[in-house]
This record gives sequence, C-alpha cells and structure tokens, in this order.
Amino acid sequence: MSTDARGPVRAAITVSLDGYVTGPDDRPGQGLGVGGERLHYWVMGGPWTYASEHEPGAGMTDADRAYYDALLDGTTGGVCGRGMYDCAGAWGGRNPFGGTMVVLTHRTADQPDPDSGFLMVEGFDAALAAAREHAGDGGIAIGGGADIIRQALAAGVVDELGITTAPVVLGRGKRLFEGFDHDVDLDILSVHHSPYAVHVRYAVRR
Amino acid sequence: MSTDARGPVRAAITVSLDGYVTGPDDRPGQGLGVGGERLHYWVMGGPWTYASEHEPGAGMTDADRAYYDALLDGTTGGVCGRGMYDCAGAWGGRNPFGGTMVVLTHRTADQPDPDSGFLMVEGFDAALAAAREHAGDGGIAIGGGADIIRQALAAGVVDELGITTAPVVLGRGKRLFEGFDHDVDLDILSVHHSPYAVHVRYAVRR
Repeated sequence: MSTDARGPVRAAITVSLDGYVTGPDDRPGQGLGVGGERLHYWVMGGPWTYASEHEPGAGMTDADRAYYDALLDGTTGGVCGRGMYDCAGAWGGRNPFGGTMVVLTHRTADQPDPDSGFLMVEGFDAALAAAREHAGDGGIAIGGGADIIRQALAAGVVDELGITTAPVVLGRGKRLFEGFDHDVDLDILSVHHSPYAVHVRYAVRR
Repeated sequence: MSTDARGPVRAAITVSLDGYVTGPDDRPGQGLGVGGERLHYWVMGGPWTYASEHEPGAGMTDADRAYYDALLDGTTGGVCGRGMYDCAGAWGGRNPFGGTMVVLTHRTADQPDPDSGFLMVEGFDAALAAAREHAGDGGIAIGGGADIIRQALAAGVVDELGITTAPVVLGRGKRLFEGFDHDVDLDILSVHHSPYAVHVRYAVRR
C-alpha cells in the first residue's frame, strides 16, 4: 500500500477477448505469438504482420491515441519483463518511452549501455524501487509481460490498471491471469474504443 | 453458417476482468458463486447480495439499460442452459424474457408447464432449432452458462456476441473460454459503460 505522494503506478497490457496476451509460440520476431498481431492493430493503426515494417503508433486512431496518452500522462519511468524486452528487439537498442525503463530479469550481467535508457534489475520489488529512483516524482508504467502485471497486482502496488481488449478470440497462448487467485475490486476510470480495441482504465481499490 | 433472413443469433454473458462467469461454488441460491454478485451489479442497478430481494433490472442505469435493450431488440426467443435455469430458480416459474426460452438439458422428462414459457430440449442443435421454430423470424438470445456460449460459438451460429465485463478480478470460478480453442475474428458494434460494467457488442465474422 503506497502512501507517498509520488505519481501513480499504472500497469497496462492488451489481451484477446479470451484473455490471452500472446498467441502460441511468442518469441523474438513474433513477439505476440502466432496470429497475435491482431492484438496490436490498435498500436499500429490497422492490420500489420511481423513481416511488415511499421513505425509503432504512427497511424494510431484518435481514440487509441487518447487512451495511450492518458496511460502515459505524467509517467517518467517504467518496468517491463525481459521476455517483452527481448521480443521487442530491445526497441532497437533505445528506450522509446522516455526516462528509464527497468527490465526485470535474472540475467543482470549483460547490462545495456546506460545511454540506452534501459536498466536490468533482478526481482520485482527491486525493479520497482529502481524505477521509482530514476522516475523522481513521476508515475511508473508497468508493461508486459503478463507475469509482471500479475506480480504487481499481487504485491498491491498498482494504482491503475489499463486493459485493452482486441476483438479477437485467439483460442491459445499465454493468459494474462493464469494462476492469479487474488480477488481485486476496481473502479472504471475511462473507456475508449476504436475499430481495433476497447480500452478501459481502472483504479485498483485498496 | 446461417444464410436465412431470420433475426440474428445473439449470445451474451457477463464476465469478470479475469474471464470468469461465476465465482466458485455456484449453485441455486448463489447462482454467480461466492463473491459473484459483483458480476451483476449492472443488472441490479448497484450492490446486492444473494440474501437481499431485488427486482432484476428495476434500477438499471441508463447506460446498462441501453446495452440490454440493444441486446434484446428484435429477439423473440432464447436458449439457456439447465444450470442457469436452475440457478435462477426458473425465474420464479415463468420466462421473464418473452417468447419461449428453450432450456438445454439432458433431463427433458420434467417439462415445465407450457404456459411457463420454458421448453426443455436435449442437444444444442435441437435446442436452437426449437427456439427458431418458436421465435418465427425474430432473433434468438443465447444466455449462459459458459458452456452454451462456447457450443454456439464453436458451431458457428452466433451472429453477435455481447460481453459485459464487471470491474472485478475474481481469481477463481468458471471461465467463459475454458477449453475453447477456436480462432474467431470479431467487429466491435457498440460500447456502453456504467460504474458497474463495460458492455461490448461484437459481430462475429464469418
């Protein structure tokens, strides 16, 4: 339970209608798994495939952009998982979100260049503390993968949860709430939708 | 694949943010399982418990009502599962939704009074056919439980899918998409939300 006056911790992720954050066989080169590109049509502003080249967000619809901006408003740092970092190809070697992105990993020996905006840290609590240290009084964005979202929710440190649901049933893949057995009440803060997704921002009740 | 000019088949159900249609131990008297009342705050117009007496829908918010009306617009019959029928106490012995509600069950011997508006039928295809026969050219509403929604989606007979998501993580219960391994693309038709739920109506792509 955070009692400080610093910015909120916001966890956000995109799921299919059946609750998967990736299709099967997610790996570098197909970060959202087989058929999983459809989860991120909203990020790309429309259909894309792993084979195509897109500037992420270049064509985002106004509704998708409004959600995305609300999510990142006032955040000055973040935490993501090593799997997401690797699947995203380290975003080309430089953190595109501003500030420092702490990468949660057991393999902290291969630290990227400090100028990259990435910092490898082991353990969720230490990762969040490191992100806080770098982010000053700003908010912290917690991205995927699913395991980090679950750890953050279980630790009771999430102030806001953003769930984007893409209009697709994947049938297989990695489930966001797999093995998560906590009971959590939330309040709906905002709802945005485009042809590609429904975005809901929730406040987590303490 | 339906090619007739009759009304649409609409499947609809309420889930938690983690995809459960009930909490654990759902049974007559606590139809949505332990803690599951929160799934239906939108139906009741606010907090309620199994112990309290409420007229369903009496206090529905305008947004919840708008979704509910869109869902039932033009429908003249329905199909639901025996579990839902039993858990709802047979809605007091009379189908409150108008027309004939076909109850999918293996136990067809105990047919209710024909005036009740309920008809017991075995097998999903036969149940849908019976509902069609009684509904004329109108649409068919397919309610819970989760197994009927899955059967209808797997059979490719659903034109529209309504998913209501309540702002609660239950952690345990019956999962809507448990064991469902089909890949389904959908289009977002409408989005409504109240403090109690986010409602999305999807068209199922064929």
